Amino acid sequence: RPAYGFSPSQVLVLGFALIIFLGGFLLSTPVASRSGLGTRFLDALFTSTSAVCVTGLVVVDTHDNFSLLGQLVIITLIQVGGLGFMTMATLIYLLMGKKINLKERLLMQEALNSMSVQGVVRLARHVLFATFLIEGIGGVILSLRFIPEMGLAKGIYYGFFHAISAFCNAGFDLFGGFRGITGYVEDPVVTLTISTLIILGGLGFTVIAETYRFREIKRFSLHTRLVWLMTIALVIIGSVSVFLLELNNPKTLGILSWSGKLLASYFQGVTPRTAGYNTLAILDLRPATQFFMVILMFIGASPGSTGGGIKTTTLATLLAAVWSMRNGKIDVGIMERRIPPDNVYKAIGIAVLSGLLVMMVTMLLTISENANFLALLFEATSAFGTVGLTMGLTPNLSDFGRILIALTMFAGRVGPLTLAVALNNGEPSKIRYPEERVMVG
Amino acid sequence: RPAYGFSPSQVLVLGFALIIFLGGFLLSTPVASRSGLGTRFLDALFTSTSAVCVTGLVVVDTHDNFSLLGQLVIITLIQVGGLGFMTMATLIYLLMGKKINLKERLLMQEALNSMSVQGVVRLARHVLFATFLIEGIGGVILSLRFIPEMGLAKGIYYGFFHAISAFCNAGFDLFGGFRGITGYVEDPVVTLTISTLIILGGLGFTVIAETYRFREIKRFSLHTRLVWLMTIALVIIGSVSVFLLELNNPKTLGILSWSGKLLASYFQGVTPRTAGYNTLAILDLRPATQFFMVILMFIGASPGSTGGGIKTTTLATLLAAVWSMRNGKIDVGIMERRIPPDNVYKAIGIAVLSGLLVMMVTMLLTISENANFLALLFEATSAFGTVGLTMGLTPNLSDFGRILIALTMFAGRVGPLTLAVALNNGEPSKIRYPEERVMVG
Ligand SMILES: [K+]
Ligand SMILES: [K+]
Repeated sequence: RPAYGFSPSQVLVLGFALIIFLGGFLLSTPVASRSGLGTRFLDALFTSTSAVCVTGLVVVDTHDNFSLLGQLVIITLIQVGGLGFMTMATLIYLLMGKKINLKERLLMQEALNSMSVQGVVRLARHVLFATFLIEGIGGVILSLRFIPEMGLAKGIYYGFFHAISAFCNAGFDLFGGFRGITGYVEDPVVTLTISTLIILGGLGFTVIAETYRFREIKRFSLHTRLVWLMTIALVIIGSVSVFLLELNNPKTLGILSWSGKLLASYFQGVTPRTAGYNTLAILDLRPATQFFMVILMFIGASPGSTGGGIKTTTLATLLAAVWSMRNGKIDVGIMERRIPPDNVYKAIGIAVLSGLLVMMVTMLLTISENANFLALLFEATSAFGTVGLTMGLTPNLSDFGRILIALTMFAGRVGPLTLAVALNNGEPSKIRYPEERVMVG
Repeated sequence: RPAYGFSPSQVLVLGFALIIFLGGFLLSTPVASRSGLGTRFLDALFTSTSAVCVTGLVVVDTHDNFSLLGQLVIITLIQVGGLGFMTMATLIYLLMGKKINLKERLLMQEALNSMSVQGVVRLARHVLFATFLIEGIGGVILSLRFIPEMGLAKGIYYGFFHAISAFCNAGFDLFGGFRGITGYVEDPVVTLTISTLIILGGLGFTVIAETYRFREIKRFSLHTRLVWLMTIALVIIGSVSVFLLELNNPKTLGILSWSGKLLASYFQGVTPRTAGYNTLAILDLRPATQFFMVILMFIGASPGSTGGGIKTTTLATLLAAVWSMRNGKIDVGIMERRIPPDNVYKAIGIAVLSGLLVMMVTMLLTISENANFLALLFEATSAFGTVGLTMGLTPNLSDFGRILIALTMFAGRVGPLTLAVALNNGEPSKIRYPEERVMVG
């Protein structure tokens, strides 16, 4: 099965690295920069990494630093990174399913049909079609909003650029001055269109496919039901928390109209997982809100999506393990299904190793950067979760910090998936050791 | 088995609460205070909570605020809290073992003999004997060190007060001005005696018992082997990290002699789990070191010991789960033993719920207190882990903050253990749901 001796996850890692370097080279050229003087290679490489890994952290402002050509390179990198990852990840999960559990594969096939080479091509075509359809609709809506303000050509360009960037959870914007889309904080069309694109992009392709074909397949897989439950729950918890914490903050919600307060709370509740767009300035939020966002960013979106983080299903699996024990059950049960132990252990593996990565990166940043701790923790988590929100640190990072954050974005993008694969080589071991309990707690 | 309708863990929680209020009342009286004016009840209650929960966070300095009588009340609360918890926890673990696994109980009995009422009394006597023996030896050594400096009576008093406080991992000291034992940073007798007491207190009684009787029982249980491995590993990792991070810090290791640098690194490597004594000023450490200590404080000591945190064995179980998957095994194996799934799930439960608690407390502190984020995260973790280290925040806490930190100390002391019991009511459920996998990562 491996093409030319590479496994699918090796293809993913190497392919991404190659595209990133190619993008970095293109973005460093003089014609890609607005000034015509070119962009420092390290910064171009950082931008390319951020685009391919659909993160949105930027050391130079996308509008102010890059020419139209440069911006087109960036949106192409975003589209290739987002689409490529979604397709590859879906493929890898399906192959994993094939290896381990025939029934699961069959369940997937309800949405995707056969897994031959023909099937892979069909999968890619489905992913492409769904992506372009959703981005197209979003792009048209945003264009209709932007054309009166900016004129025809620029309005269409801005509409589609931001629709693609939103669905890919990339967080790149063209409004200049590192301001993000704070100018549209009270605008329902921009806010609601972009947040819908963000949520759809964060579901993962199999969930979109199953949802789209619900009438045919009649019932959802456990995975799809968990993804929807966690997505809705996290959006509600996020929005309500932002609303309550920021209501009286004169720098954020305090100055907005009531509809603005609601829109901004909702948008900031959606964006930490893992869009990277913001309509409120992150630095002006209260520390409690910023810390809360760190937690949401660490959780992230769903597997096989354009979003990052440890993933909603990983958290759900861990919570199900806690809850099952609480209810006096030995099995990890949720929604009338039993999650097998090795699936739970894989969730532990991803959560523990991701936590260690974020802590290590944060520690290194405390040594290399001169900023307050929360800003550093925020930056490290944002990079790991490929979120792209920042408390303003990114443009001021030292060169060491830039390299570290770029590597973290890359690890955050391909890490959890390749971990999920690596933690899965499992034929049951030949030797079975005697059981013995340990006291915990 | 439950006495008067209370389960052992209810007895533990209610008994601790009762002793805390009694202690708070005694400490608030005028005769307990140095000035003769009494201590504010909230502050007395905070002190009592900190003593009974063997934490060591103080809002008023133990030496400067309390009379000899007050100090004697405090050391009594520490001894009752430390001993009481160790005995109750060991008892609870043994009862749990009885319910679930006869073989494990038998293994414990190798160290403890029968579990009848007679057995419980014998257990308590063993715990008492071991505690007084260890504290006695430590007290004599420290007295011999302090008598030349302070005279006979005060030297003996200081020797035994700090030996008890160290073995109970309580972190209370009598050196005044919130300075801790920073005055003895280069003193090998004080540093090494106290750190040895801290480590012994953090092992848990069954480990001490098994280790003491090794010649008789010939082999250690998995639990004892894991505790020793993790304790030694964490002490080495902690000491080396402090040494490397602080070596050139002119406020901490920088000004010390080479033997002082080594002693101070070792001591600060030992103390975050979960002693609370410090020979370097925590506030002067680099942020990287402070953050590293947060991680160590969260991990804490071993089950059924005087220390807190999620416990070494909880972390070991999670790491074993990760590692087993990495090696392509379906079972969680470590040291040629297999840890059963429900034991692993319990470890997840304790880690996840503890993490949530620390995050929630930190968020509340960001709202109620005016201090930098790392100091708040440090304080919340120190309270949860019943550690007692602080970046100087404790005496400056608002009243809300004092109540919150007191509650966190209490939750950190009795929480993980009662969780371990609650998560354990498990008869396998009657209904077994069909198995279904979810994608994670
Ligand atoms: K992003
Ligand atoms: K302590």
